[in-house]
Formats: sequence, C-alpha cells, structure tokens
Amino acid sequence: MNVLDPRNNHGVAYVDDAYMPVHEARMPLLDRGFVRSDATYDVAHVWKGSFFRLDDHIDRFFSSMHALRMALPHSHEEIAAILIECVRLSGLRDAYVQMTCTRGVPPPSSRDPRDCSNRFYAFATPFVWIANDTQRRDGLPMVLSSVTRIPPESVDPRIKNFHWLDLTMGIFEAYDRQAIVALLHDGHGNVTEGAGFNVFVVKNGVLSSPARGVFEGMTRRTVSELCVLLELPCEFRLVRVLEMLDADEIFLTSTAGGIMPVCLLDGRPVGTGMPGPITALLMSEYWARQEQGWLGTPVTNYPINANGNGACTS
Amino acid sequence: MNVLDPRNNHGVAYVDDAYMPVHEARMPLLDRGFVRSDATYDVAHVWKGSFFRLDDHIDRFFSSMHALRMALPHSHEEIAAILIECVRLSGLRDAYVQMTCTRGVPPPSSRDPRDCSNRFYAFATPFVWIANDTQRRDGLPMVLSSVTRIPPESVDPRIKNFHWLDLTMGIFEAYDRQAIVALLHDGHGNVTEGAGFNVFVVKNGVLSSPARGVFEGMTRRTVSELCVLLELPCEFRLVRVLEMLDADEIFLTSTAGGIMPVCLLDGRPVGTGMPGPITALLMSEYWARQEQGWLGTPVTNYPINANGNGACTS
Repeated sequence: MNVLDPRNNHGVAYVDDAYMPVHEARMPLLDRGFVRSDATYDVAHVWKGSFFRLDDHIDRFFSSMHALRMALPHSHEEIAAILIECVRLSGLRDAYVQMTCTRGVPPPSSRDPRDCSNRFYAFATPFVWIANDTQRRDGLPMVLSSVTRIPPESVDPRIKNFHWLDLTMGIFEAYDRQAIVALLHDGHGNVTEGAGFNVFVVKNGVLSSPARGVFEGMTRRTVSELCVLLELPCEFRLVRVLEMLDADEIFLTSTAGGIMPVCLLDGRPVGTGMPGPITALLMSEYWARQEQGWLGTPVTNYPINANGNGACTS
Repeated sequence: MNVLDPRNNHGVAYVDDAYMPVHEARMPLLDRGFVRSDATYDVAHVWKGSFFRLDDHIDRFFSSMHALRMALPHSHEEIAAILIECVRLSGLRDAYVQMTCTRGVPPPSSRDPRDCSNRFYAFATPFVWIANDTQRRDGLPMVLSSVTRIPPESVDPRIKNFHWLDLTMGIFEAYDRQAIVALLHDGHGNVTEGAGFNVFVVKNGVLSSPARGVFEGMTRRTVSELCVLLELPCEFRLVRVLEMLDADEIFLTSTAGGIMPVCLLDGRPVGTGMPGPITALLMSEYWARQEQGWLGTPVTNYPINANGNGACTS
C-alpha cells in the first residue's frame, strides 16, 4: 500500500496477512465473530507517537482468547509488531488501535465452534474521544440508565467482548435525555459501567470504582496505580447507585479519551457542577506522564512527510 | 454470477446490491454490526423448494429493526424477493436463509449510532441441522448448563440478536460433558433456551415451554399452532429446572432442524430414553404439512440443471 496516500489517515487495517486502508478492510460474512459475536478484542492507544501499555493490552488479549478457547498462530511479539506497523503506515501520531480474534468461519453446515480456525484482525484509526474538548474541560452530562448491564453470570465482562446492545440502548437513552453518556446498573442497586468506560466516584477524598460486573479497563487500572503514586486512597468495591447522587466528583475512564469528568447526573450538578480537584489532578498526571514516556512503546520510522495528526518528528 | 457454478451450492449471499457465492461475501470490518454486535437478524428455511412462513419471518425482522431504531430502504416485498433470489441462484431445495440488518459504519471518529446508515445482508446456505439423522431418530443428549442466559432486562431476547457468548460457552460445556446441546437457566431456577433452539417439556399429555427470557422462535410458534390443530394442551409459562428431571418427553424446536427429541438429560434418560409419542406426532405433522404447502412460498424458476440438494423439479 502507498503509505503516503492521505486517505490512509483514516486508518490502516491488517487482515489476512496484508495491510490496507481501513475503509477497504473486510471480513467474511459467515465469520462466527459476526454472526454469533464469537470474538474478543482489546484496544490500545497511541499518544504523540507512542503506545501506552502496549504489552499489558496484548497480555490481556491473550488471556481473553484463552478464556474463550481461542488461539492464534501469532506470538505476543508478532502481534505487537503488526499493531506498530498499522500505526506507522497510517502516519497517525494519536491513534486508537484495536486487535480482534474471532472464532472464524465454520465448514459448510457445521455448528461446532471447535471446527473453526480462529482469525486475527487489527486496525489503527485516529484517536477516539468519548468526550470532546469542551466536555473534557467542563464535564460530561450523564444519565443513570434504566438498562441492566449484562451480568457476569451470563458473559464474563473481564473478557472484552462485543456484547454491547445493552450499552448501545444506553447511548440512545442518554441522547433522548439530553446527555452524552449512560451508566448502567446491575439490577441490584449497584452501578457498573457504560459504553466503553469505567466510572469512579470521589467522596471526602476517597476514590471508589465498581469491583464486579465490569470490564477491568486499562485506564481504570492506570488510575489506581496513579493513586498509589499520588497517595490517594482508592478502592474497588460495590458502588451503590445512591452514592452517585451525593458524590463530590465523578469521572469516567476509557482508552477512548483517558479520564473524563462528569458534571451532570440525571440533570443534577455533580459536586460544584464543575470538574473537581482530584479529577483535574489525575487528568493532568495521566497525560503528562505519558508524554514523558511512562509505560510507553514509541512507534519509530514513520514515513517521512506522512500527513498524520501530530508533528512529524521521526 | 454464474448460477450453474457448483461452488454456489455452498450458498449465495446478497451484499451491497449484488449476489455472490457466500464464501466470497464480505462486510466492512468497522461495521458496528461486528465491532459492537449492533445488529438484528432472522432466519427462515426452505424445504423441498418452498419457504416456510416467509412473511412471518420478515414481519418479525421489521419488528426487531424497529425496536433497535434501525431502518432499511427495502420494503417487505423487496426483502422477500432478495431472499427468494438468493435461494434460486444457489439451486438449493433445502436451505437456511438469513436476513441481517446492521447499524453500519460510523463516520470517522464518531461514536454516535445515529450517524450510521443501516446495512442489509442476506444469504442462503444448505439447510442446517442441529441434530443429525441418527439424533433426530433416537434423540439428542442434552445438559443443563451452568451458564445463565443473558436476562431480558439486559438484552430483549425477542429481538433476535447475535449476543451468543453465553450460548457458545454452553455448546463447549455440552461437548465437555459428552452431550450435543446445552439448555441455559435464568438464574432463578427456570429454564430458558439453548443455542438456536427453544425447549418443550411434556408431562401427562400437557406441553409447556418457557414464556419469558427466550427468543419466541417460529418453530415454537408453529408447535403451539399444531397443538391447537391436534387438540393437544400447550402452554407458555415459567418452566422450573426441576420439572425437566421427571418429564415424560422433552423436545427442542429450531428453524435449524424443526422438532428434535431429547433422549438424555445430564446423562439420565428422559422418559423411556427414546422419543415419545407426542414428539413423534409433532415431528411428523411438522414436515408433512410443509410438504403439502402449509404456510409455504414456493421458489420458482430454479436454473435448469442447477445442482441443488434436492430433486431438480423446476
């Protein structure tokens, strides 16, 4: 492929041992990854030309595949090299990078998932923000959704999966109620997560985030590690829906946007109605440390003159 | 496409306004139908050259799309014509025919499902049997799975969807325990459904099938209608797991195979251990009435000499 074609700035995919512009990437219609959502994935991000926690994401991807009884012919190192190459070819300095393993296409008339050869797909696209610039500065409006998150007894949320219809209906509900994001409950009075994010609540200087029924996100893990470094008390535990209503601060964490303050909950101000000091401190540390190379894997040898979304420094 | 190419006997797909051999059919990697399982579908079948309940399947497909806030530019009649054409081009006399609507591909960096143009995919492949000839004659071994079915509070099972990881883990559990199929429970002591099938239990001449937390399958509906015609008492209600253990007969219903007896449950014989008389009567009526044209839509104008899986009678 022509790495300098500006159309590639929409992203680059890797399918069937070839790199291609992401808008040209296709998968078989009969892949059980589509027709049975029989797949797992992980998403890493690249910021200013460097992956953040790339090895941690790939380790988790392997754990997820193992839990679903999937395996690929690629090693950890080979997957890292493919992901880096997707980013390099795209020229993107800030990128959203997805690796996916599907069950694959069964032989004609077979319903046995053991008959499939598992398939690998990867792509890098421009960095995705759940919250735009204004929302990251002033906070997001969020609703407590009426939808119950798929429970861990049905689908283990720690295995990153595409079972998102509950989350997608939450997105519609948020828009219907003049908000941007929706937080789902567990059917027992506890909060869980939303579409692509974990939630933290701050009360009297203590941070808490749901321990169960949620994806154990990498940004969630990063916040808990920052809390150790910054000597902030932070715990994973059951978080009651009612605790949200008198929180001092609420923020969301996601690879798609980092740490994002919530300013309104069901139309009521959270705390002062503006991002609080602990949220602001964590946001600042999260980005500053990445820019200093913390847990980073630089992408090298970007094509000269590649028209990415950051300065061309390679 | 060359309708007489024998490779098309694996099936024919319709994607982006074109017909093609199903093994060549592809979808965009970034379709939310894949990367968020944001899709609905329906499956009809063709038996001896005639669709069964085609209009009922398409009606339900439209209801599912409406519930997920999706819409296609195709009318009911246009979708019927596309499905019939897939079958005709395949030459298949016995076929499994799927229609799917996905949310579509969002614009670059958008996370808003409202920004997507919904997409339509269809295909016809050879008829799929959950149970093979021997299993339909002698009965299937089934396990009561340890997995809880995704509850209706999270994802409405009446909207046919690809959220199958619970069902897929059930399939693995069945194989691990020397069975073929797994029946999932609802977490409250009631049975629900399995991978692509509903369940009926027969006790003292009365048929029962779960009323809630299940897909309301077309074969399930057909059985209830046959029961009216045959003056057999049949009810949809909560069915306790414990009722399964002293059932006289158990059978499964699915478009992928019709009515299928269960002979073993967790290794214990069901009733006599052989298919019972009510199951046998319903199986017989189900196929005989279809072959007489009941609720049928014939596929006409099959290509002459098409090498389908039935007699070439067109």
